[in-house]
Amino acid sequence: MTEIRMRGDGYYSTHCSSQGLVIDRALPLILQALDALDPASSGTLFAIADFGAADGGTSIGLLRTLLSELRARAPDRPITLTHTDLPYNDFSALFRLVHGLLPGREHEGLQDLRGVFSFASGTSFHHQIFPDATLSLGFSASAMHWLSRLPATLEDHVHAVTASGAVRDAFAAQAAADWETILLHRARELVPGGQLVFANFCIDEVGRYSGATGERNLFQTLARLWRALHEDGTITSDELHRATFVQYYRTIAEFRSPFDDPASAVSRAGLVLEHCSSVLTPLEQFTEGQDAAAYARICVSSLRAFSESTFLDALEPGRPQTERQAIIDRFYAAYEADIAAAPKAYRREAVHCFMRVSKVV
Amino acid sequence: MTEIRMRGDGYYSTHCSSQGLVIDRALPLILQALDALDPASSGTLFAIADFGAADGGTSIGLLRTLLSELRARAPDRPITLTHTDLPYNDFSALFRLVHGLLPGREHEGLQDLRGVFSFASGTSFHHQIFPDATLSLGFSASAMHWLSRLPATLEDHVHAVTASGAVRDAFAAQAAADWETILLHRARELVPGGQLVFANFCIDEVGRYSGATGERNLFQTLARLWRALHEDGTITSDELHRATFVQYYRTIAEFRSPFDDPASAVSRAGLVLEHCSSVLTPLEQFTEGQDAAAYARICVSSLRAFSESTFLDALEPGRPQTERQAIIDRFYAAYEADIAAAPKAYRREAVHCFMRVSKVV
Repeated sequence: MTEIRMRGDGYYSTHCSSQGLVIDRALPLILQALDALDPASSGTLFAIADFGAADGGTSIGLLRTLLSELRARAPDRPITLTHTDLPYNDFSALFRLVHGLLPGREHEGLQDLRGVFSFASGTSFHHQIFPDATLSLGFSASAMHWLSRLPATLEDHVHAVTASGAVRDAFAAQAAADWETILLHRARELVPGGQLVFANFCIDEVGRYSGATGERNLFQTLARLWRALHEDGTITSDELHRATFVQYYRTIAEFRSPFDDPASAVSRAGLVLEHCSSVLTPLEQFTEGQDAAAYARICVSSLRAFSESTFLDALEPGRPQTERQAIIDRFYAAYEADIAAAPKAYRREAVHCFMRVSKVV
Repeated sequence: MTEIRMRGDGYYSTHCSSQGLVIDRALPLILQALDALDPASSGTLFAIADFGAADGGTSIGLLRTLLSELRARAPDRPITLTHTDLPYNDFSALFRLVHGLLPGREHEGLQDLRGVFSFASGTSFHHQIFPDATLSLGFSASAMHWLSRLPATLEDHVHAVTASGAVRDAFAAQAAADWETILLHRARELVPGGQLVFANFCIDEVGRYSGATGERNLFQTLARLWRALHEDGTITSDELHRATFVQYYRTIAEFRSPFDDPASAVSRAGLVLEHCSSVLTPLEQFTEGQDAAAYARICVSSLRAFSESTFLDALEPGRPQTERQAIIDRFYAAYEADIAAAPKAYRREAVHCFMRVSKVV
């Protein structure tokens, strides 16, 4: 298992609050999913999951709305809410948030909601997390671009999205296999009529993706700055090549593929695609007259939250911790300088594929 | 909510491995509980909980035996295993252990067991953790002596067990209220026929308790050494008085009390005491010819795992972190010197009340 991890102690959601903007746009799909489940009709448990939730901070607002709506329709129905992520995740920060104990964010806690039982799982969404037929509504945002394994080495890139040829094909194949596996596990977990809502990073119908909607491409810049550390003798060739996001941005067609084929394993498992659309979410942009250095700092904080472990893990484990951290700090400082010099060249826009999926009885 | 926490990153169970000796002795009761549940008879979920599990390391051996036994009797029954503790607990260390990712302890992971779904909860056992009638078998070891709140200030003691009079009565009343609350929550959570197995710290029939079975009393020594820090001007009066374990060691009679009264809320909730006994477990002792300093270090490591947060939290929050840590280090160094000077005066023996409880239909 790879040791992918978001930065801990609430750092992730504090510095990725823009992900909350994306997630909040999933609310209509969440409410449609709730309607489809007819929540008031049954006396059984209503089980909600947030797959790949990190510290929970970016989805807590959406979950509060969902839980309040569900509670209004079913005053006495017991609800379980399970946040999932990898074992290295900061689950203590997650529970402190949910229980209203995270300093400065106490008001975001869910402790005032009656009959909601909070749990966490450290099992990857590439595996089955819940027993068969126990999950009512599963949600996941900005998480399923993480692959189960690295299918190939990207020598001149840090992300498959800028690669091409056989190497990119290997990533595409891994992503297709993972997507099928993810969906088949969810099909087993869902109750009949159960619902899934996804907001996954994607490449949209016109080729846009997060980090590549402006003049400059985030991943090309990161590759160039990482290569510069090799060219000046800071990092070895192995370290240069090892820096690879274990990620793949699927196209809309790739997301749809298992649903569009009625003979696919996913279709045969009872999953039906009810909604699929690409959504571009403008995040905070540089505005004329703003302090470019301050803007650059915000951009880098947000980037570090999800990318730092990829670059740290590329470094030789034998290097002393302080040296590793110093290299990484230099790398991000170079990126910060790059943005500060041309703050309008990087558009901060998130590109997601929003989907709602039903499990037919 | 108090911020009680065991030391993280696997430190707790590594240095409290002796707690594993106690827990392993609960196996006969666990197997009786399994028999009482008739595990093979049903196609529904079998839900296991470990209440107040810390990093999970001291109970994982017992849970593996339980899970293997259950799997042998019910090859296809889905099993959930939920470890619970307070939000400040190191849940990442817990999940790394369960998933076989904790360095040096990979073989203790449960990843080879088929159909076992692992979860965690950050909800205190002083509250309801699971929805009504969903828990099959609950286990808890060395956890329920932690009270839900501090009922009084112990000016001349650090633990209620060495106090007397009105102050001790206040702790006894809080402990009785908490015990009833704990049991009533569990009664709601259990399925009909559900089982609880407890190994709780206690004062046994002849007045023995953990830390007080030898010539010297652990808690009197800690109080004396903490007072010495006040006498030499290191800590303030407030800091002196604030150092109080939010704990109470119940007597066997106190543990039995709600069960022995058929009119009690606990009895009316359907809980029946099937077994109750005091168990003294000898832990590693000093043997003639052993290195007294090395022995003292082991004793202090084990003590720090559960006591450090109590003394750290007694210090003024305004003190710099390095100063706080230096005071605490000095305190434990004094205790270490005390043991090294008289290693045979402190007997390492754990005194527990072992109970099995059934929920009648």
